[in-house]
Amino acid sequence: MRITALAGGVGGARFLRGLLRHLSRTTSPEHLEHEPVELTVIGNTGDDITLFGLRVCPDIDTLLYTLGGGIHEGQGWGRADETHHLAEELAALGATPQWFTLGDKDFATHVFRSQLLGQGMPLSAVVERLSARWGLGEQGVTLLPMTDTPVETHVVVADGDGSRAIHFQEWWVRHRAELPAERFVVAGLDRAAPAPGVLEAIRGADVVLLPPSNPVVSIGIILGVPGIRDALRGTRAPVVGVSPLVGGRPVRGHADVCLRTIGVAETSEAVAGLYADFLDGWLVDEDDPMRPRSGLEVVHRPLLMSSGEAAADLAGAALDTALRLRAGRTIA
Amino acid sequence: MRITALAGGVGGARFLRGLLRHLSRTTSPEHLEHEPVELTVIGNTGDDITLFGLRVCPDIDTLLYTLGGGIHEGQGWGRADETHHLAEELAALGATPQWFTLGDKDFATHVFRSQLLGQGMPLSAVVERLSARWGLGEQGVTLLPMTDTPVETHVVVADGDGSRAIHFQEWWVRHRAELPAERFVVAGLDRAAPAPGVLEAIRGADVVLLPPSNPVVSIGIILGVPGIRDALRGTRAPVVGVSPLVGGRPVRGHADVCLRTIGVAETSEAVAGLYADFLDGWLVDEDDPMRPRSGLEVVHRPLLMSSGEAAADLAGAALDTALRLRAGRTIA
Repeated sequence: MRITALAGGVGGARFLRGLLRHLSRTTSPEHLEHEPVELTVIGNTGDDITLFGLRVCPDIDTLLYTLGGGIHEGQGWGRADETHHLAEELAALGATPQWFTLGDKDFATHVFRSQLLGQGMPLSAVVERLSARWGLGEQGVTLLPMTDTPVETHVVVADGDGSRAIHFQEWWVRHRAELPAERFVVAGLDRAAPAPGVLEAIRGADVVLLPPSNPVVSIGIILGVPGIRDALRGTRAPVVGVSPLVGGRPVRGHADVCLRTIGVAETSEAVAGLYADFLDGWLVDEDDPMRPRSGLEVVHRPLLMSSGEAAADLAGAALDTALRLRAGRTIA
Repeated sequence: MRITALAGGVGGARFLRGLLRHLSRTTSPEHLEHEPVELTVIGNTGDDITLFGLRVCPDIDTLLYTLGGGIHEGQGWGRADETHHLAEELAALGATPQWFTLGDKDFATHVFRSQLLGQGMPLSAVVERLSARWGLGEQGVTLLPMTDTPVETHVVVADGDGSRAIHFQEWWVRHRAELPAERFVVAGLDRAAPAPGVLEAIRGADVVLLPPSNPVVSIGIILGVPGIRDALRGTRAPVVGVSPLVGGRPVRGHADVCLRTIGVAETSEAVAGLYADFLDGWLVDEDDPMRPRSGLEVVHRPLLMSSGEAAADLAGAALDTALRLRAGRTIA
């Protein structure tokens, strides 16, 4: 069975690790008919940034480290058992910025990636090399960046009487999304081509899942790569997503601020509206007021991924919803 | 008083640190007439190498770390209290080479330098930034790379019936200079221009010193930068050097192998011959059979820099020789 997922960083990675856990504990899954599962993850590269001359892909790396077992569990990003000697020395050298935390092991990923990119290797091939280091293939996982084209999200913020654009990471990490944002500008997105395999993974999927990643700056950016949204509209696979909001607030991150910035209400219903043209199933929190509607199956489940088991339960519920929809289609 | 020195890595750095120590302990120096000392160091960049996409300048960094108090004393190169987490992760990623040891703090220097070089900053300006971090200015020291032009020494080694060229560092570090070398090829040297200030530092010096650096792959490379040798021939400053050989063997490194490779005898006398067109004074070991000759003052001294005090004594002896020669010239 081919599962394809679109994913941002921490939330997406935890959901997908939950999915792998769910699949491994489901020894005789009702709907899987013992098929081996191929999971293709299409990762957001819209918040990539060049720091100290090195290309950093925060969401891709969070996916790699989380699925590969190297993540710092407490943070949700970066490597476990990390030191920061390189960054301390960069600070002594007066190098900037100093608001983006990079550990020594993490730096190796960026040095390695930058070297290969500098040699002309496309990002998707670099991600393949990184995936091998983290054993993703052994788990049946293929990680693809949404595009090999460099894309960078910038945030237009008020500045005195005018406004200025800062890199998304500066807004998100340095200013914790507290600097009032006027809009997001995704440089390069209109010219970006889906990375090799991305459209095929959506079109050829049996199930497409949207983890509870940020609908604006993660999933929203992936959907902005020309061709991807059309592929989702056209795929025969049911598309099932998980709301990132519980009680109008994101479980993690600043999805609410991002939604306000683009003029969308901070509700699961409004987020589903962003995906209306391709969404078939939608998991919302137990207390979410959203009701089912024509063409959209709404499932109420606890959304909090407070443990690996809870994440597996949530991912399992999303997968089961998709498989049920798929079975219904087959019957119909 | 303006002192200019040409220097390679470990031996040159220890000698120059000895010189600073000598100057600081000489509260009322006989010949200095209380003049402040300006020391300009022209560093070898001929063994620079690009590793993992980062530009590494081993000799320049050894000079910075040694004069700045950050050197690993036991090794003579690299940073004190170093960790190697980045390199370990690069090894896990399958990145090569793995024979060149780079610590986490040391990596920061290379990341910082590579970023600035990538932005178009010349190496000499980068070295100025690095010198500021290491407080060289406060010690009256200006460190200049011999050239801003990328120069790389390669070694032609026998390979089956033919031969092949490998980077100098691969020959020196990986093969410990044990792979029979046919010759050295210094790519870029013929087109290299002296870095800003280099020729002026030689021409305007009161004293020029040659530390006991490798006469072939350190001093020899610096002398190969078009214009530098002519400046040494033309300067009014006495040029005083220190032999790198004790009993026909280098105190450290593989100067003997390098000399054999270029067909020069492994004697202090033969090394002096390499500098014959500009050398005025030459310090050799106490037991060295070399005798004074017309136009070259030969001074016998213990050459082993077994302690900071011994290095200061040696540097002091070289400086005193130069000042004596200068005083003699002034009188004549």
